[in-house]
Amino acid sequence: MKNITVIGAGSWGTALACLLAQNNHEVTLWSYTEQLATDINKNKENIVFLPNIKIPNSITVTNDISLATTNKKIYILAVPSIFVRETMQTFKPFLKKDDLIINVAKGLDEVKQIRLSEVIEEVVPECKVAVLSGPSHAEEVAKKIPTTVVVSAKDENVYKLAQDIFMNEYFRVYTNNDLIGIELGGALKNVIALASGVSDGLGFGDNTKSAIMTRGIAEISRLGVAMGGNPMTFNGLAGVGDLIVTCTSMHSRNRRAGILLGQGKQLEDVLKEVGMVVEGVNTAKSALLFALKYNVDMPIIQQINKILFEQKDPKEAVYDLMKREKTTENEF
Amino acid sequence: MKNITVIGAGSWGTALACLLAQNNHEVTLWSYTEQLATDINKNKENIVFLPNIKIPNSITVTNDISLATTNKKIYILAVPSIFVRETMQTFKPFLKKDDLIINVAKGLDEVKQIRLSEVIEEVVPECKVAVLSGPSHAEEVAKKIPTTVVVSAKDENVYKLAQDIFMNEYFRVYTNNDLIGIELGGALKNVIALASGVSDGLGFGDNTKSAIMTRGIAEISRLGVAMGGNPMTFNGLAGVGDLIVTCTSMHSRNRRAGILLGQGKQLEDVLKEVGMVVEGVNTAKSALLFALKYNVDMPIIQQINKILFEQKDPKEAVYDLMKREKTTENEF
Repeated sequence: MKNITVIGAGSWGTALACLLAQNNHEVTLWSYTEQLATDINKNKENIVFLPNIKIPNSITVTNDISLATTNKKIYILAVPSIFVRETMQTFKPFLKKDDLIINVAKGLDEVKQIRLSEVIEEVVPECKVAVLSGPSHAEEVAKKIPTTVVVSAKDENVYKLAQDIFMNEYFRVYTNNDLIGIELGGALKNVIALASGVSDGLGFGDNTKSAIMTRGIAEISRLGVAMGGNPMTFNGLAGVGDLIVTCTSMHSRNRRAGILLGQGKQLEDVLKEVGMVVEGVNTAKSALLFALKYNVDMPIIQQINKILFEQKDPKEAVYDLMKREKTTENEF
Repeated sequence: MKNITVIGAGSWGTALACLLAQNNHEVTLWSYTEQLATDINKNKENIVFLPNIKIPNSITVTNDISLATTNKKIYILAVPSIFVRETMQTFKPFLKKDDLIINVAKGLDEVKQIRLSEVIEEVVPECKVAVLSGPSHAEEVAKKIPTTVVVSAKDENVYKLAQDIFMNEYFRVYTNNDLIGIELGGALKNVIALASGVSDGLGFGDNTKSAIMTRGIAEISRLGVAMGGNPMTFNGLAGVGDLIVTCTSMHSRNRRAGILLGQGKQLEDVLKEVGMVVEGVNTAKSALLFALKYNVDMPIIQQINKILFEQKDPKEAVYDLMKREKTTENEF
């Protein structure tokens, strides 16, 4: 039994708090707004972000950072990726040496072109960092539907601890020592989901969609290897596993945005119609910067950027991908 | 321009014949029955297996082996996998040294536990053998929807020739030098599609399905490596690419059979209801024999065999998979 605080009371943070309480840990759920904390405490339900799931009485829900950090050594960071740096800065004064931060947000730092665990290390270098990723809709985990994820960290003891904390009979946790690959896979799959949505929006078939997903994973692997990762990681839960969930789900905003782009709509209108943040759009830009920085050929990422930001005709983009030079799958 | 005969006038053979004619090859399509050859010639359409697609006048459709082998050096073998050996025996007297057989059937030889290219080599050792695999519904290729596939052979010149023959702007062909991996991926994905159908039939979610697909690829890779293949191959078009198409398609018989099994029906009734050959059922048995032969742990293959042939409760099978010992993704 551990004392654990989940930072962020969105759908994923709330679902993980329930899972950890189920695993008999002492859990505090910290919410960015006081209102949400009050509502969850009153209703025993997170009506906005995870409706119809009972929040166990054993979970303390609070907006008070001091309370959320008292007697704690383990934190789950479950905020949108763009708020990772800011949130860590807010918590920094309350954290101690060797506290463990397990990040579950997926994304990249566009400005510095670094991974999110590197952002966390920059802000709180005295803490240990792990990540958890993989194909895991929050709603399904909250309903105890069988789910598999993967954890990673620089240090074996750290990721094994993360595995122990989370694992139960409906939440199977694998370890992977390739932190770079795990973080890249989770971030870049959103861009490939966007591209696979474009194919659907164009009215192309299962063949085309599978081609984009498979060759998308190939180019993510190429970048991963250039950055020092293991190509096999992209074959796993944080790579193709997470991509499959995103590309086949009707709920994925990235996929929906892609479909609208494929139907010929302009980015501005697409974002209005989806009405929420489409993470793949920002990650597409970052990915292109990473490709340049590491001098890696990423044709799908290139074409999706042209569709997003240069009004390129999506159909032309697909045929430009098809007509490239003959090549091989044997890259590594 | 080459003289090419497609052996087998099912949906895939017919679609490939049309594609090759489109690429300006001189194409003969050989049908196992005289009736089908006559019908296709009369209707300029393969109404039974590939309706609504015009067969170009330039294609010769025949049931006559002698005609189908005159002045030919390249054959596309597009028959159901269980007929590969028999068909090659029938053609053997008409084949010459160094004729190229490009096999597009997916399966394994259950009796001898060998791959289909090995079956072909046994029957016609004087011929060269290549394989073509990947995510490619015949109906979509016939409609010229963008599709990617992969070719392999022992000899680089052979698979590069296969790439040249097929490639065009809607059919992009990659090469891969790992013949073992390419053949295993295409065959075993049907078993994983069956298992992912079981999860859907049980009413589990996207998380569970993605877990089965991803960990299914992991165990296929494990067998592939034990047999001398490259684990990266299963990351590619003949591995996860083909698996995605099969597991997400409503038309997949393997997936449909899995759904019925997950709903609690017995194998006999499932096969009656699907009404056609479910290749994954036979391949499941072969796969288990391969796992034993090469001493490889394949938990999903094991559980699907128990569901199929030992009346194991599918829900219990899924939880038995979830409750195994803690492990890692780092295998290779």
